Amino acid sequence: MDTIKTYNKRKKEEEEEEEETAMEVGFLGLGIMGKAMATNLLRKGFKLTVWNRTLSKCDELVEIGATVGATPAAVVKKCKYTIAMLSDPSAALSVVFDTDGVLEQVVSGKGYIDMSTVDVDTSSKISEAITSRGGHFLEAPVSGSKKPAEDGQLVILAAGEKALYEEAIPFFDVLGKKSFFLGQVGNGAKMKLVVNMIMGSMMNAFSEGLVLADRSGLDSKTLLDVLDLGAIANPMFKLKGPTMIQNNYSPAFPLKHQQKDMRLALAQGDAIAVSMPVAAAANEAFKKARSMGLGDLDFSAVYETVKHLQHSS
Amino acid sequence: MDTIKTYNKRKKEEEEEEEETAMEVGFLGLGIMGKAMATNLLRKGFKLTVWNRTLSKCDELVEIGATVGATPAAVVKKCKYTIAMLSDPSAALSVVFDTDGVLEQVVSGKGYIDMSTVDVDTSSKISEAITSRGGHFLEAPVSGSKKPAEDGQLVILAAGEKALYEEAIPFFDVLGKKSFFLGQVGNGAKMKLVVNMIMGSMMNAFSEGLVLADRSGLDSKTLLDVLDLGAIANPMFKLKGPTMIQNNYSPAFPLKHQQKDMRLALAQGDAIAVSMPVAAAANEAFKKARSMGLGDLDFSAVYETVKHLQHSS
Amino acid sequence: MDTIKTYNKRKKEEEEEEEETAMEVGFLGLGIMGKAMATNLLRKGFKLTVWNRTLSKCDELVEIGATVGATPAAVVKKCKYTIAMLSDPSAALSVVFDTDGVLEQVVSGKGYIDMSTVDVDTSSKISEAITSRGGHFLEAPVSGSKKPAEDGQLVILAAGEKALYEEAIPFFDVLGKKSFFLGQVGNGAKMKLVVNMIMGSMMNAFSEGLVLADRSGLDSKTLLDVLDLGAIANPMFKLKGPTMIQNNYSPAFPLKHQQKDMRLALAQGDAIAVSMPVAAAANEAFKKARSMGLGDLDFSAVYETVKHLQHSS
Amino acid sequence: MDTIKTYNKRKKEEEEEEEETAMEVGFLGLGIMGKAMATNLLRKGFKLTVWNRTLSKCDELVEIGATVGATPAAVVKKCKYTIAMLSDPSAALSVVFDTDGVLEQVVSGKGYIDMSTVDVDTSSKISEAITSRGGHFLEAPVSGSKKPAEDGQLVILAAGEKALYEEAIPFFDVLGKKSFFLGQVGNGAKMKLVVNMIMGSMMNAFSEGLVLADRSGLDSKTLLDVLDLGAIANPMFKLKGPTMIQNNYSPAFPLKHQQKDMRLALAQGDAIAVSMPVAAAANEAFKKARSMGLGDLDFSAVYETVKHLQHSS
Repeated sequence: MDTIKTYNKRKKEEEEEEEETAMEVGFLGLGIMGKAMATNLLRKGFKLTVWNRTLSKCDELVEIGATVGATPAAVVKKCKYTIAMLSDPSAALSVVFDTDGVLEQVVSGKGYIDMSTVDVDTSSKISEAITSRGGHFLEAPVSGSKKPAEDGQLVILAAGEKALYEEAIPFFDVLGKKSFFLGQVGNGAKMKLVVNMIMGSMMNAFSEGLVLADRSGLDSKTLLDVLDLGAIANPMFKLKGPTMIQNNYSPAFPLKHQQKDMRLALAQGDAIAVSMPVAAAANEAFKKARSMGLGDLDFSAVYETVKHLQHSS
Repeated sequence: MDTIKTYNKRKKEEEEEEEETAMEVGFLGLGIMGKAMATNLLRKGFKLTVWNRTLSKCDELVEIGATVGATPAAVVKKCKYTIAMLSDPSAALSVVFDTDGVLEQVVSGKGYIDMSTVDVDTSSKISEAITSRGGHFLEAPVSGSKKPAEDGQLVILAAGEKALYEEAIPFFDVLGKKSFFLGQVGNGAKMKLVVNMIMGSMMNAFSEGLVLADRSGLDSKTLLDVLDLGAIANPMFKLKGPTMIQNNYSPAFPLKHQQKDMRLALAQGDAIAVSMPVAAAANEAFKKARSMGLGDLDFSAVYETVKHLQHSS
Repeated sequence: MDTIKTYNKRKKEEEEEEEETAMEVGFLGLGIMGKAMATNLLRKGFKLTVWNRTLSKCDELVEIGATVGATPAAVVKKCKYTIAMLSDPSAALSVVFDTDGVLEQVVSGKGYIDMSTVDVDTSSKISEAITSRGGHFLEAPVSGSKKPAEDGQLVILAAGEKALYEEAIPFFDVLGKKSFFLGQVGNGAKMKLVVNMIMGSMMNAFSEGLVLADRSGLDSKTLLDVLDLGAIANPMFKLKGPTMIQNNYSPAFPLKHQQKDMRLALAQGDAIAVSMPVAAAANEAFKKARSMGLGDLDFSAVYETVKHLQHSS
Repeated sequence: MDTIKTYNKRKKEEEEEEEETAMEVGFLGLGIMGKAMATNLLRKGFKLTVWNRTLSKCDELVEIGATVGATPAAVVKKCKYTIAMLSDPSAALSVVFDTDGVLEQVVSGKGYIDMSTVDVDTSSKISEAITSRGGHFLEAPVSGSKKPAEDGQLVILAAGEKALYEEAIPFFDVLGKKSFFLGQVGNGAKMKLVVNMIMGSMMNAFSEGLVLADRSGLDSKTLLDVLDLGAIANPMFKLKGPTMIQNNYSPAFPLKHQQKDMRLALAQGDAIAVSMPVAAAANEAFKKARSMGLGDLDFSAVYETVKHLQHSS
């Protein structure tokens, strides 16, 4: 009896080990977002092999159980699934196409999930390369920044291969509060642009309202309170309002990136003849802010273009 | 001792009763909003004398305890405090200045609280007339429409005489979830314009995003879900989004009124040299919607100007 | 005797003939425009009775043959036709309605031609007052500023009574290179707003082009030369371009007046649901210029809002 | 004697050959513009070797003295200077880089003058290829369309090698009324975008004015007359106005090309942080026109977006 019990127990443990091995995951890119996300995966029991361009950034994750991969290629070789969270399109391309890059080890059955925010072209280029080698690809940009990443409360906008999306759900369940499968590659990038375009126009509307209130002799804080009680109350107004009226624009989402997203969203509309006059006006305000040297501040600094009074010449 | 105590106690109770009697309130205007508000006041125990241009509209309120006043003047004569909730500036002026109007019975000590949405000029004109006769005046436009009115969840933007504001708090506690005292007469109207201007620009930003998503091959309902999980989630997107993508614009807030508020907010900015390019672009979209015959539909029908494709000539 | 008698008689007849030929005309308002216009009328042989709020301004005209009227009423009493060229709507109203104003002497047969630039309401108010007393009214705002006024090269936008327009043609022939009869009172004002609205948007387009060229490393003067040779060559670009690139905005047409005309044209469009997004964007740029303290400079100073780079906070 | 005679004769023939060679010019591209330009060069005595993708288009020019080259390479081999006038960037690139293209015969001393309207990148790519083979390059886009091309009244915006510009002046004197040398390659393209951007905004301003006048009850033709007499009178308003009010948009400059130039000009501004809200608003109107199916009509069809009233849903 004992033997059988022991045998059964051992068998069960082996199965669990197998399951755990199957759950070994690669993770490329340990910036602010990537580090928070990788940490969550580790804490929820996934075995992670991590890589970062500056390898020393892996140390903190090693302390909580991660293994280090020497190169993106090495990570992909070791893991069935690899997640990437890079800073921009050029980093996303470099990690895939450079020497010792992801592509060198992509073979049939490998899954590559790029959660970086990139444009449609970049995503398509990576997708074609991965799938032409028999790999599986998913783009999965996220809505949400540092705090939601730490809290596992991101919103995940996945697109590409449906089967890989379904296999990735255990990861997404850890990383986000909700994931969406949006269809073909590029749709994740497009959805993110739409959301950020609305956000950029709203930030301008909010800024104009704040200035109009203030110049009309109304108290800005009261306006924030009134807004927060009404039909257009939203977390962004609540979070950014108090810092804006203190001229505090420490960058959570840099203005130049917001403006780039407005430009890309307008270009997306241009390609398919969608006229968006409010977004276009908002985009020009963000450009004006860039011309005023505010590009590296938070995107809420567009408030300065509305407030601005001084004649410089 | 006991007798005296009892006597004193009884006297105090009588005084309290008198105080309650002194809480008899006039209520002018029983449209959608006014009826809901008056009903709430009655249910919370206030004694109401109501008046409406079409007197038959008073019947329902009489059934739950209201008394009818024959004219605005009659109501004001009877009550220390009178609340008005009229449909527009001309109705607000007419109720005060016409024959049998409020003004005929305003004397020292009377309080008049106009909760209609009117412009600064209208409010100032009424204020001057009331106070020049020794009365007390408060403008108190509200943020919120039918549902919040019924639920006693309005946001009240009061301005005028501070003392009257404090006396009116028991009413406001019943009618709204929050009231603000904003200073001099006109500030309530101005604050409401600022809020509605932001709302109008947001509705345009939202419409542009919905069309861009749809034309880009993204599912509109998914966009709504994504928005509802992020930093710009707000009740208006949640409420209007589903009806907009069904081309349902049954009017909660008519587009022509929204456009009028945009125009007035821009004029408020013009007077003090505040440049608001995003609000201006949004205003032109609302005008375009009016030119397309959509003025009487809900303000969310501005969505049609973005969607619109057909060449008519 | 006979000879002398005959001579005297003949002389008197000649004088009468001269008088008839040289029709006596009233002229109210001797600002920059009015003085130039009155001077031209005098030089062409019209007998002028002039009035100005500051009477000393009449002196120069008296030197070249004008008679002075003590009040607008005195001028109208003396002359069959009176022309007015006042600075703004309030001056135009004041000259008509104040004590000793035009209205006091308007009787059947008198013609009043108001060439001031006023809004439709002001023009209508004056028209009604004049015609209700049996007088005849023509609004006749002009296109063109100081130089065309001096050169008798104005463009005259007349509206009101057709018969009076025809009687006024001898004056208009002296004052302008072309006059138009546009129909009912108000049409002159409206036409002028349309022209000025187009002009304001063009000035913005021009400013944006100048800045884009300069920042792109192109020579601004070369751009002016290229423009002047092409399909969009126009006197305004030719005149204003060279001064703008020298930051010279000495006011020919003050920016605040241009912005007021943009606002009024947009309001004219609003009333009839004409959406004009480019004019609206231009209007916001002029408002921005006002907020930068440029309202009293030439309207070409809107160039500064495009050039403007500095962050003030 | 014979020797000397022969020598002299041979010398003379050589000189004539040199002269002929020096004057022989290549011309690639015989579309509407190219044909008119080549015709002018032939009529002024230049010997032309012409090429066109559809060679039959060369026939008319052969009749007036041109020689045909079989390929772009053959033309360049034969001629010291070759002028190109292609329809778009892809044609401009193809003629240079394809098999039998210009590049195959570019050697030291050859001059290539591309008068096509292309973007900065295209122009730079061609410039690098030509100069890396020892050739000389000039971009020389033109301002002006069919009629000025026929009349030799183009405005030529040259940039690239100054020496080649000076050698090309005899051609430019025939083709245009004025040529400018604007510095480094790309400046011609940039200058053209600036001019077209101003033109596009002006066309919108004009359209808005025409609609506002018409809806205000003013006669559109009278507005055209008034405009033509004032400070903003320009050939474009004079030419396009009468056809626009007849809804005639037969394409001289297709709307989709105008919109593309607006987009490129805005992108040029975006790269260097120049905010241009009026051009952005105009661009959205052109996009709206494209969405209405007007892209292939004349750019003046943007008028339809302002006029447009109908609600399609």
